[in-house]
Amino acid sequence: MTKLPEEEHPIKAFGWAARDQSGHLSPFNFSRRATGVDDVRFKVLYCGICHSDLHFIKNEWGISKFPVVPGHEIVGEVTEVGSQVRKVNVGDKVGVGCIIGACRSCDNCNKSLENYCPKMILSFAATYHDGTTTYGGFSDTMVANERYIVHIPNNLPLDAGAPLLCAGITVYSPLKYHGLAEPGKHVGVVGLGGLGHLAVKFAKAFGSIVTVISTSPNKKEEALKNLGADSFLVSRDQDQMQAAQGTLDGIIDTVSASHPILPLIGLLKSQGKLVMVGVPDKPLELPIFPLIQGGKNIAGSNIGGMKETQEMIDFAAKHNITADIEVVSMDYLNTAMERLAKGDVRYRFVIDVGNTLDATKHT
Amino acid sequence: MTKLPEEEHPIKAFGWAARDQSGHLSPFNFSRRATGVDDVRFKVLYCGICHSDLHFIKNEWGISKFPVVPGHEIVGEVTEVGSQVRKVNVGDKVGVGCIIGACRSCDNCNKSLENYCPKMILSFAATYHDGTTTYGGFSDTMVANERYIVHIPNNLPLDAGAPLLCAGITVYSPLKYHGLAEPGKHVGVVGLGGLGHLAVKFAKAFGSIVTVISTSPNKKEEALKNLGADSFLVSRDQDQMQAAQGTLDGIIDTVSASHPILPLIGLLKSQGKLVMVGVPDKPLELPIFPLIQGGKNIAGSNIGGMKETQEMIDFAAKHNITADIEVVSMDYLNTAMERLAKGDVRYRFVIDVGNTLDATKHT
Repeated sequence: MTKLPEEEHPIKAFGWAARDQSGHLSPFNFSRRATGVDDVRFKVLYCGICHSDLHFIKNEWGISKFPVVPGHEIVGEVTEVGSQVRKVNVGDKVGVGCIIGACRSCDNCNKSLENYCPKMILSFAATYHDGTTTYGGFSDTMVANERYIVHIPNNLPLDAGAPLLCAGITVYSPLKYHGLAEPGKHVGVVGLGGLGHLAVKFAKAFGSIVTVISTSPNKKEEALKNLGADSFLVSRDQDQMQAAQGTLDGIIDTVSASHPILPLIGLLKSQGKLVMVGVPDKPLELPIFPLIQGGKNIAGSNIGGMKETQEMIDFAAKHNITADIEVVSMDYLNTAMERLAKGDVRYRFVIDVGNTLDATKHT
Repeated sequence: MTKLPEEEHPIKAFGWAARDQSGHLSPFNFSRRATGVDDVRFKVLYCGICHSDLHFIKNEWGISKFPVVPGHEIVGEVTEVGSQVRKVNVGDKVGVGCIIGACRSCDNCNKSLENYCPKMILSFAATYHDGTTTYGGFSDTMVANERYIVHIPNNLPLDAGAPLLCAGITVYSPLKYHGLAEPGKHVGVVGLGGLGHLAVKFAKAFGSIVTVISTSPNKKEEALKNLGADSFLVSRDQDQMQAAQGTLDGIIDTVSASHPILPLIGLLKSQGKLVMVGVPDKPLELPIFPLIQGGKNIAGSNIGGMKETQEMIDFAAKHNITADIEVVSMDYLNTAMERLAKGDVRYRFVIDVGNTLDATKHT
């Protein structure tokens, strides 16, 4: 007999969930496990809204397990720790990103590449080791094994820091892995959204020379003045694109819509790297000759491992890197999702869970 | 007024050329420059036949400059050196591969990545610094700046060593660059032709565990027994392919025909690399989700630089790596080209230029 979500575990929890692929979110009572010896429990204070939350509540990838409590850019304050926890203490600020479990024994886990563990468990809409569904951060309380807990330094604002746990690590990790996080490297960023604007900030902090590539000429001022990019290319302007051929060491491509990659390959120096972090749902056209001629690379990259996520958060705190956000209350969630679907946010919604969730218990 | 090929330079030369895109090759009188202070002149003894020679004589890439004297796996014996040449002496065995010129001042040239110099000059069917056409190794004599001369160790057979200068470096370079040339690495080789069979030999010499992936089940014995591969996958056998998911650190894909790469991406471990060295003439389908999910890479690779080509030849001599060849005489050239077009060679034709070219002067 399947237990109801609020009866599965001993600790009462409250959040907002989508019940079906209409994607409509509403108040939801469920439960969380007791704090195990290796576990950290925390009160959720803020949670970012990522585009993949939108995919999941509408079941656009066909893998959602309803009800879905989204939210995987979760930050808060520790309320309880298990007896064997060494990483954090009660009162510390912590976060959980996309990952809440992994096998801990494969080659990838041994290298703290939990993000590539075949048994990696997402922090929401997935099945946990104990067979119950994982519920994300649009909720009042969170519990996780300490391995998946990120310590948030005191000087990092919790609201604008929350999106670093998914959007931030998603761009930080490939910049590091592909040797682009070095002073003087020429780095391109395609698409100026939640991921793209953080890619610009991290690349600048690494000392890179950053070019933003966008279909929208009207993002130029934003890119150069507000985000500090060094140059801007309108991808539809063939003269501009031609003049920039062979100038970039690497490109972080954050665009999820189908788009031609041949012009981007052309922008790369030989042995340059085009890293895809957005997920177009159809295959792209891959021309082989330009890849061969320049010894170029196209790579995919999926968030980052736990060790690197901590490194990224510490780097962000040191260099004052946060997301540009719009803080919203819990009851604004469905409107925020609608606006996100239209790209109407600069650049990330963050829900003020700590101050506004309780009020929705009785709506 | 354009000079005739035999009047352009002071040194008489004789070879075989295609006059037009029919691709038919026949005896051809031309000339080569006098030996400059940095130049090495050599008598051609053997020259391999590569698939791109076939593309060029039929102008299949649309860039051929007729008449085309093909041949870019050229070995022979030094007959004259310029006063400033330090690399080799008269009597030494030497070779020239695909590259006979480059700008020598760009970032790539400074790293001896002449193969990625935007001004790289092919050893045949291209335009040299002085404006004259470059003629390849299906000819009696060759001259090159010493930078593009490879010294051939005495113990490396000249006939079976010749194909290393293009086919060999084409697979050696990506194995090294992508970190696959290490003991214990699991390396896949797709396609068992001129390039593929050398990829197996080099990978084995590096200590890798080698899997050959082919559409033809009847190549299994050849791959395992004759070439020493460790395992064999029939790419159309879904059960075999499924069982091998996630097992390879990297794959060298030598196939020029259009083919699906999704199954190959599936064979890679996370962060694994699929390196394309064959050139399909149409874009392939690139599925993004599997690339991202596993942090996987697709790379192109184009021959190799001069320093690395010398390193490869020295490595081959040390480890007794040569191509499996069929030695043919000059007057067999058109037949050899026809057989090559049908894939009817195991695995490389090499022309015995030294002993058979002269006899064709009067045919």
